Amino acid sequence: MNAPATAHDARALRRALGNFATGVTVVTATAPDGERAGVTANSFNSVSLDPPLVLWSLDKRSASHPVFAQASHFVVHVLAADQIELSNRFARAAADKFAGLEPEAGRGGAPLLDGCAARFHCRLHQQLDGGDHWILLGLVEAFDDFGAAPLLYHQGMYAAALPRSRPATAAEPLPGWLGDNLLYLLTQALQAYQASYQPRQLATGLSSGEARMLLVLEQHSGLDACALQREVAMPATEIELAEMVLLRKGLLARGDTGHELTALGREQAATLWRIARQQQQDIQSGLDEQDLAACKRVLRALIQQG
Amino acid sequence: MNAPATAHDARALRRALGNFATGVTVVTATAPDGERAGVTANSFNSVSLDPPLVLWSLDKRSASHPVFAQASHFVVHVLAADQIELSNRFARAAADKFAGLEPEAGRGGAPLLDGCAARFHCRLHQQLDGGDHWILLGLVEAFDDFGAAPLLYHQGMYAAALPRSRPATAAEPLPGWLGDNLLYLLTQALQAYQASYQPRQLATGLSSGEARMLLVLEQHSGLDACALQREVAMPATEIELAEMVLLRKGLLARGDTGHELTALGREQAATLWRIARQQQQDIQSGLDEQDLAACKRVLRALIQQG
Repeated sequence: MNAPATAHDARALRRALGNFATGVTVVTATAPDGERAGVTANSFNSVSLDPPLVLWSLDKRSASHPVFAQASHFVVHVLAADQIELSNRFARAAADKFAGLEPEAGRGGAPLLDGCAARFHCRLHQQLDGGDHWILLGLVEAFDDFGAAPLLYHQGMYAAALPRSRPATAAEPLPGWLGDNLLYLLTQALQAYQASYQPRQLATGLSSGEARMLLVLEQHSGLDACALQREVAMPATEIELAEMVLLRKGLLARGDTGHELTALGREQAATLWRIARQQQQDIQSGLDEQDLAACKRVLRALIQQG
Repeated sequence: MNAPATAHDARALRRALGNFATGVTVVTATAPDGERAGVTANSFNSVSLDPPLVLWSLDKRSASHPVFAQASHFVVHVLAADQIELSNRFARAAADKFAGLEPEAGRGGAPLLDGCAARFHCRLHQQLDGGDHWILLGLVEAFDDFGAAPLLYHQGMYAAALPRSRPATAAEPLPGWLGDNLLYLLTQALQAYQASYQPRQLATGLSSGEARMLLVLEQHSGLDACALQREVAMPATEIELAEMVLLRKGLLARGDTGHELTALGREQAATLWRIARQQQQDIQSGLDEQDLAACKRVLRALIQQG
């Protein structure tokens, strides 16, 4: 085995930690003086069922910490797949993160947000020291289980969950009723495509997020931060991290109007395109050309309907 | 707002907590006497970068606890998408969970498993009381960032991550180079399909896992536990939870040869099939019939290639 990296490089550690996928939560609270706080956190997890305990951690430098330390309660909102904007809103510093939301008040006055997948109404149970973060343990007093497709976070990118169904094998072909179901076929086909594609892309040493950034910057030079964030669909902090990695690898250089690809970066982008093209060719070589064209028409129509 | 459920019903709480998606880890350690332990955990999370701290929690009743309490180190393995079997292996009690694996020894002798997305080599930093679990804090001394598609866990089911790309809109149609890329088209089409399908399914009040169990049991009556687990592709503990929910809702009854759907359960299954068929009809109504047949041929071919 190769010697593992030591933990001294905080950026490399953060990148490695990004391999652990999580949901996304927004945690809210109100201090006794009425000041409200809300932060985006993916450090949430359940700890215990009896007593019912959950935890999450908060940066010790966070301006919201005094509110969470004084409030009797906090509410954890597990975000649904369509709440990327809410996630971004509470991840940014702002004078009033709740502007325009008019949240109802829950236990201890904690602001309640709507449209999420689940909510956990917690009494602050303990605040533990966790290095540069506080670990906040909450006793769950009540909860809402709305059930919704979840928003995910992996390698610095938002993602959706693709339920894994049992793949068909040559020995056990699809039963007729499933073999004709478009959703099942789409899910399985995508799973098969990704299984052969992702290892090729990851073999370049770039995470999915870094690869996406590189390709977007190659297509659109001189994007401002806001346009870049829209194009890559990644949170601002992760864009920063990916930028640092790409800068350090010499794939990107600071230019007058933002970041620009270096010659090496253009070469790496060309490699990524080559991998994507090669993969597409490998996949398509066994397929009937007219069927393939028809398939793409159908997929485009589905996208337009969505 | 409806009054939220109180936290007294542990099963309902566990179900609600399942809305928070996570990656899956296997944590290993070796005691000074050479005894090895390994457990599947999805309670892992990062806490701090300076010092580098991570945490996970372990059931106080776990037979593996003495090993983790005595070992100087533990290693957290973040599982890759193709490691469902490893996840199931370390989730089950067994005389020797490592049989046939022949793991190398890492820091403090902790068994090292291969093929995962990332590994964190940790010195046991602190063991905190977390109700019916111990919270284990580790100081990350070294790590491996292999980068791989992650295994996910959501609502009791394994899942894959589907990177969210910026969807095309009528105002900004797909640029040509993307509009012809099969992977991009598949991803976007599935995202669009799911966005309209999942809310209809979740409106039945069943989680995705419960709905899948019900449909599998309707198709195959009298499955033994092992065959059921293979068909639904869910971990054993989650199958138990889904069974309890379905029993309590009166959709399932204990029979002589395992669980059987009640009349109400068959009605609910029929509703789920109706939703799936209706969704498929709505989606397909605008599509050319021959194109659709060609598309399904292509998707089946992709699945066979995978």
